[in-house]
Amino acid sequence: MLKITTAQEAQAFIDRYDTFLFDCDGVLWQGKHALEGIRETLDLLRSRGKRLFFVTNNSTKSRDEYAAKFKSLGLTATRDEIFSSAYASAYYIKNILKLPADKKVYAFGEGGLRTELEAEGIPVRGIDEDNDPINFDILHTIKPNPEIGAVVMGFDVELTYRKYARAFTYLYHNPECVFIATNEDATYPIGGTVYPGAGALISPIITALGREPIYMGKPQQTMLDCIMLKYHLEKEKTCMVGDRLNTDILFGINGGLSTLLVLTGVTSESEASTSEIRPDFLASSLGDLYHLTK
Amino acid sequence: MLKITTAQEAQAFIDRYDTFLFDCDGVLWQGKHALEGIRETLDLLRSRGKRLFFVTNNSTKSRDEYAAKFKSLGLTATRDEIFSSAYASAYYIKNILKLPADKKVYAFGEGGLRTELEAEGIPVRGIDEDNDPINFDILHTIKPNPEIGAVVMGFDVELTYRKYARAFTYLYHNPECVFIATNEDATYPIGGTVYPGAGALISPIITALGREPIYMGKPQQTMLDCIMLKYHLEKEKTCMVGDRLNTDILFGINGGLSTLLVLTGVTSESEASTSEIRPDFLASSLGDLYHLTK
Repeated sequence: MLKITTAQEAQAFIDRYDTFLFDCDGVLWQGKHALEGIRETLDLLRSRGKRLFFVTNNSTKSRDEYAAKFKSLGLTATRDEIFSSAYASAYYIKNILKLPADKKVYAFGEGGLRTELEAEGIPVRGIDEDNDPINFDILHTIKPNPEIGAVVMGFDVELTYRKYARAFTYLYHNPECVFIATNEDATYPIGGTVYPGAGALISPIITALGREPIYMGKPQQTMLDCIMLKYHLEKEKTCMVGDRLNTDILFGINGGLSTLLVLTGVTSESEASTSEIRPDFLASSLGDLYHLTK
Repeated sequence: MLKITTAQEAQAFIDRYDTFLFDCDGVLWQGKHALEGIRETLDLLRSRGKRLFFVTNNSTKSRDEYAAKFKSLGLTATRDEIFSSAYASAYYIKNILKLPADKKVYAFGEGGLRTELEAEGIPVRGIDEDNDPINFDILHTIKPNPEIGAVVMGFDVELTYRKYARAFTYLYHNPECVFIATNEDATYPIGGTVYPGAGALISPIITALGREPIYMGKPQQTMLDCIMLKYHLEKEKTCMVGDRLNTDILFGINGGLSTLLVLTGVTSESEASTSEIRPDFLASSLGDLYHLTK
């Protein structure tokens, strides 16, 4: 693990890769504030002809909504540079799973998930349709539906038992129905604390079915498979940048990429030096790439 | 394992015990219909001076509501004969946990759970209070509350993310807050099929916290501890009667009780003969006790 602290090290690091994948929260921004030097670093990398991708486990926003968030923080990202677990779910269903045209997807999640599925031409049930509570007398009206070829589950603040009963019923009665989860993060960080995350909200279906989903998000590799298939990246020339060892850095290592850990998020330097998950590079901040080489 | 098929065997079985604990669904009734010979068998046992308790993992009804269900099926059970996981939760909090008087319980479940907690004089938050959906903008208004001394979770068809966020927040920020679950059944049988059960609905909090609850229901022993404490049963003179090996029969065996498996529910005779969980007695139906001895 090399800590990047000199102009020469920063320059060599930049020169070594064609493509950079970035985690967002804790790397580019913290909550609602862009980190110092990030805009300049992204500009620098683009000016050197590097390809940039922003890889987030958050499934609640569409790519357009994510691009708007970049803009609101004074940063730039195009829709095609953003790979969220919602978009990865849609891309996976369309291009890897190749869901037959007569099948629909039952989605449990926020509007961003529906937007991405529909943008790929995938017929969607669920989301806004099942927000009403249910009662015991009408539970039996939730029945198996062979038209549902996949169930996709992500973070959903408007979850209901009706949604759980539907997701379960479609999967339980049809072993061929594919069970997809956007990400396995057990907690959702917001406003300086955490609440139950997508990985927690999916667990009723895992428990009731006794069956694990295919996870899209980091540290699982499905999102990377999608990026590779769509953009044909060279792994030797690609570096994953993140602030979490057990998601971002593990994702990069398992995918055969190089890795850079930045210390602007959840991991401290002492944690990094004692962890079994070893990034190739370490930097105090992504902004150092700009400051060290300017 | 003795299969009870003669008058002599039935008589010896009845004579051997003072107290019988019965699972309900699959033993006394199936769905909305009492099984044949059950009324007569319960009358027979009562006429011989036996004590009867009805032990159910279902947490949605109060004991009074359960007694009304017995009546609607032409059966009799007094409130004091009924031990549901909702009542066991209330009894446990009051008499074993001895929750301090200045503490409240946050309950995630149906009205029957609230009724039983309040009947024990326990101040309750949750249930009907948090049925409204929540959104990201107001999530931060859910804050730790040191007044909450225990979180109790059971089956809840009106679950919301607001409820999950509250249950998680009270437990996550206060390691002394006690985490109680009514039962761990992963599925909820209704109308000939199953939907996600209490054990599934509790799992988001287990996943997000990385901490297991104290389970009240079968096969865990807490409900039996409550029954023993309240009624001072002699284990050698008590028999647990059920239709499920991995809940009812295991509950009896682990508690040092004798066990009778009946074949009117989910377990077949061939399953019973090959399972590692071995009941002491087997009967085609609980009604056989009446028919064989009349």
